[in-house]
Amino acid sequence: MLTKLKRFLIGRPLKTNELQEQKLNKIKALAVLSSDALSSVAYGPEQILIVLATVGYMAFWYSLPIALGILILLVALILSYRQIIYAYPNGGGAYRVARENLGTNYGLIAGGSLLIDYILTVAVSVSAGTDALTSAFPGLHPYNVAIAVALVIVITILNLRGLSESATVLAYPVYLFILALGLVIVCGLYDILTGHATHGHVAAVGTPVAGISLFILLKAFSSGCSALTGVEAISNAVPNFKDPAPRNAGKTLAIMGCILGALFLGIIYLSYWYGIVPKADETVLSQLASHIFGRNGIYYFIQATTMMILVLAANTGFSAFPLLANNMADDKYMPRPFTVRGDRLGYSNGILTLGFASILLILIFHGNTENLIPLYAVGVFIPFTLSQVGMIAKWLRQRPKGWAVKLVINLTGALICFFVLMTFFVTKLDKVWMAILFIPGMLFIFRAIHKHYLNVADQLRIPLDSEMPVITNHIVVVPVAGITRVVERSIAYAKSLSENVVAVYIGFSNESIKEMEKKWEAWDCGVRLVTIHSQYRSIIHPLSKFIDTIKYKFNDEHTMITVVVPQFIPKRWWEMVLHNQTALLIRAYFMRTKNVVISTYPYTFKK
Amino acid sequence: MLTKLKRFLIGRPLKTNELQEQKLNKIKALAVLSSDALSSVAYGPEQILIVLATVGYMAFWYSLPIALGILILLVALILSYRQIIYAYPNGGGAYRVARENLGTNYGLIAGGSLLIDYILTVAVSVSAGTDALTSAFPGLHPYNVAIAVALVIVITILNLRGLSESATVLAYPVYLFILALGLVIVCGLYDILTGHATHGHVAAVGTPVAGISLFILLKAFSSGCSALTGVEAISNAVPNFKDPAPRNAGKTLAIMGCILGALFLGIIYLSYWYGIVPKADETVLSQLASHIFGRNGIYYFIQATTMMILVLAANTGFSAFPLLANNMADDKYMPRPFTVRGDRLGYSNGILTLGFASILLILIFHGNTENLIPLYAVGVFIPFTLSQVGMIAKWLRQRPKGWAVKLVINLTGALICFFVLMTFFVTKLDKVWMAILFIPGMLFIFRAIHKHYLNVADQLRIPLDSEMPVITNHIVVVPVAGITRVVERSIAYAKSLSENVVAVYIGFSNESIKEMEKKWEAWDCGVRLVTIHSQYRSIIHPLSKFIDTIKYKFNDEHTMITVVVPQFIPKRWWEMVLHNQTALLIRAYFMRTKNVVISTYPYTFKK
Repeated sequence: MLTKLKRFLIGRPLKTNELQEQKLNKIKALAVLSSDALSSVAYGPEQILIVLATVGYMAFWYSLPIALGILILLVALILSYRQIIYAYPNGGGAYRVARENLGTNYGLIAGGSLLIDYILTVAVSVSAGTDALTSAFPGLHPYNVAIAVALVIVITILNLRGLSESATVLAYPVYLFILALGLVIVCGLYDILTGHATHGHVAAVGTPVAGISLFILLKAFSSGCSALTGVEAISNAVPNFKDPAPRNAGKTLAIMGCILGALFLGIIYLSYWYGIVPKADETVLSQLASHIFGRNGIYYFIQATTMMILVLAANTGFSAFPLLANNMADDKYMPRPFTVRGDRLGYSNGILTLGFASILLILIFHGNTENLIPLYAVGVFIPFTLSQVGMIAKWLRQRPKGWAVKLVINLTGALICFFVLMTFFVTKLDKVWMAILFIPGMLFIFRAIHKHYLNVADQLRIPLDSEMPVITNHIVVVPVAGITRVVERSIAYAKSLSENVVAVYIGFSNESIKEMEKKWEAWDCGVRLVTIHSQYRSIIHPLSKFIDTIKYKFNDEHTMITVVVPQFIPKRWWEMVLHNQTALLIRAYFMRTKNVVISTYPYTFKK
Repeated sequence: MLTKLKRFLIGRPLKTNELQEQKLNKIKALAVLSSDALSSVAYGPEQILIVLATVGYMAFWYSLPIALGILILLVALILSYRQIIYAYPNGGGAYRVARENLGTNYGLIAGGSLLIDYILTVAVSVSAGTDALTSAFPGLHPYNVAIAVALVIVITILNLRGLSESATVLAYPVYLFILALGLVIVCGLYDILTGHATHGHVAAVGTPVAGISLFILLKAFSSGCSALTGVEAISNAVPNFKDPAPRNAGKTLAIMGCILGALFLGIIYLSYWYGIVPKADETVLSQLASHIFGRNGIYYFIQATTMMILVLAANTGFSAFPLLANNMADDKYMPRPFTVRGDRLGYSNGILTLGFASILLILIFHGNTENLIPLYAVGVFIPFTLSQVGMIAKWLRQRPKGWAVKLVINLTGALICFFVLMTFFVTKLDKVWMAILFIPGMLFIFRAIHKHYLNVADQLRIPLDSEMPVITNHIVVVPVAGITRVVERSIAYAKSLSENVVAVYIGFSNESIKEMEKKWEAWDCGVRLVTIHSQYRSIIHPLSKFIDTIKYKFNDEHTMITVVVPQFIPKRWWEMVLHNQTALLIRAYFMRTKNVVISTYPYTFKK
């Protein structure tokens, strides 16, 4: 039945040779790889306003210079990542760049941050997508968390089915979203220029504001940086581009940067001009759209595309997390199950882990994007910084032609990223302190996993000159509870294994033991019976002592003990509760005993 | 670590021969066996007032005639149960009496009702005990459910430790409770007689009341009958009395009846005279006590003893449920695990089941006694009625000396109990309808369990003339994933089992298969390797097909297949997640396959 449900949800299994990569042209690549970055404009501008709102309405004009600062950062990032694209045409994730150029520890920090980051991508994007939905339909607002969780479940199932990131259908929402936001910005600006719009009575740029401080401005700046999450995606996916891959990827990155910058600046400017104030139950984008268009078809189109692109952004997390987990597991820093391809050829364990973890985050933070975003941004800027520093190390080491210019570009990127990162820790320590605990914690775990795998490999390796071990003495122990059909079969099986079979009866009273001994003699099955009186009504402990005695007697490498345990298989599953699970206990207990093999003899009831 | 926690909570295991029964004298027996019945006066009178309050304050005088009716019922029950005591000196629970005299089905109905009833005893008593506590300390009222659950957990642990029902310390609270309620009644009456008390302005007895109906009166009457729950306890425990057991038990029953009647009548009368109105957050008993004494030391003493006796009453459920479950399991109507004595000689599975079930009830009903009590009372009056009817059948069949008088007494008891039962179903169907579903449901389950055990016994029985089966052909299959230390050991073990060993390698690509074949040849371990290409990356399905092929080839009773599965045992438990649990999957999958034995070969990592 479970299998049927699985088939229904996931689909039929695929053969390994059905695995294939599709090469992307620029138009499709832009759609597929930029949904994470572009969707960030749905919540980035709002974060700036939320911080400024703590000072007051008068401070909103500061969003404009802050936005310019973020634009500069964007340009620096695009230029830096362009260099990574050319330097790593096979895909230059932060894990790889940092590991190759800065050493394993930095690679692991980058990798670990990215893993957490992808979980946050899913949680933040889905939560923000839900906000877009419930802004349009306020009646759904109380169900925010439930809707977000349901969305994650649907995305997880689709990914387990093997939804390809490159499916053509996924390209539409991105272009529709660009169209929708373009419409907002163009119409908004047109209204302003033609004087149709009502001014929001905001303070003019340059108005002095009481209570504003550098701290607040830095905080607002770092909050706005969340709009830059996702710009690294293209540099990770260079091999997916059509040839010449690096050139095409570089161009796509530049186009994406321009679109992202334009949308971001447009939204910030319009929000300022219209005097939008962030609200708990309606997004800034929704307010802006309903301000410009009213709550008509265009408004709902904008909200729908916003929601769709955010869900797509979550989906990029589902492409990236399992792949990175697989790479790190290949390097023996993550558990090996992450390398297993599921029925539909996706890395199912990675997909499921990501799904569970992001649902957990949504539940813990009640789907509240405002609390998740700072952590998300920190998680992004750590690998950003490490990638840039890694590139600096690379240029210094390799010194290719024109390395000085390249160095300066990456150095600028690194310094700005590092500055943003520090700003986070200084201005938002209350929300990002967890990252400080997580990073050394993760490093420790990755190292422990690695050590374990090296130890295992070491222990499993057979030296070339080793001789095959020979077992000369094989003792078979059959615990019996009476003389029944199952015992008869188990004894027959045991006799086929070895000459040396002994049955053990563990009785709770002298009477039961005497009776058993008498019956056994009468039965005469050709196997000796040992009886043990268990004063504490335990089967396991006397059996364990008995086996220890045998082990002690034949204390050598050539002796093996097999315990044959019969297992009842009832016709109906619920009938299992009607039997003492002694076989299960024996198996669980002796599983960890050296030189003792547990053989489960199945006995199927016919009725 | 788990074992340590268990030892700390439960204590060291006890030997079977440490099991001993203590005989009770009358003073101790009264304390031990009447806590359930006597504690009922803590909630019984209140139930009458709650029903009358639906009509109005004016109707409260009806509580007096209703109380008299309940007293008559009490006398009838005491007389009937006195006869059961003499007729069943070895303990005459309703399950036994009904089963012997009316047949298995009625016995099972009585037994099932009692099992549910004991769960309700625990839930109701603990909830009422919590009410006594939070009446005294209103600040704790919001934590009612949490306190009740914590109490059940403590009682469960104490019972797992083997808290003897006959521990002397348990006798004090009962006598203190009698003292406390005696004090309330005596001082209350004294105040009334000396004119110190303020009359509650209640309507005089006989005042006509608008809106009163026979339906309401019957409902109030049946609600009050909840004060009689627990009177059967003494008749179940006759063998625990000192000799002459039936005589002593009979006397104790009579004394308990008198005390119960006096306390019940006293509380009803005082509540009427003082005009106490039932409240949601304070019990009637607490109101009465604070009315008479004020909130001083005596008041807190009364509340404390009330709480204690209610917890003790819950504890009687913990003595009775596991014992009845054990008896029914002995008769093969309940799962066999209920017959297993735990480390401390208690029937641990029964104790745990009762603990879980009563916590579940408390959570579902939010610890609200008012909703639990009707169901509880129905659960009590079904076995009451069946016991009496069983006795009638017994007298009619055996006709001992003076049987006519005995018959009349039990007939009266049966008729009254049946009348009360019908009253429940007529007046409180909204609260007791579940009982109508439960009873046939339980009967069905008991029957299904019984049938299963009979079937199993039938299948396990060896005919006297049966010949020992002989296994002549033993094929050992070793799934291998590479050439490692574990594989080497497994192959060596397999070779010691049979001449007929085959290793199976399941590869996901042709390259890996070719490489493995080459390596295997070079290794030369003396065992043939079969390689299978798994297109769907599954280990289980190709292995299963391979084994099916072998089974098909040697389709006879003398062939057994053993699959040797190596099991990694890492040094630290968390390292388990670092390995694909293929061994576990293979074991789980083939566990249900006939003629296939799964042998788990343990390989312990040293580091």
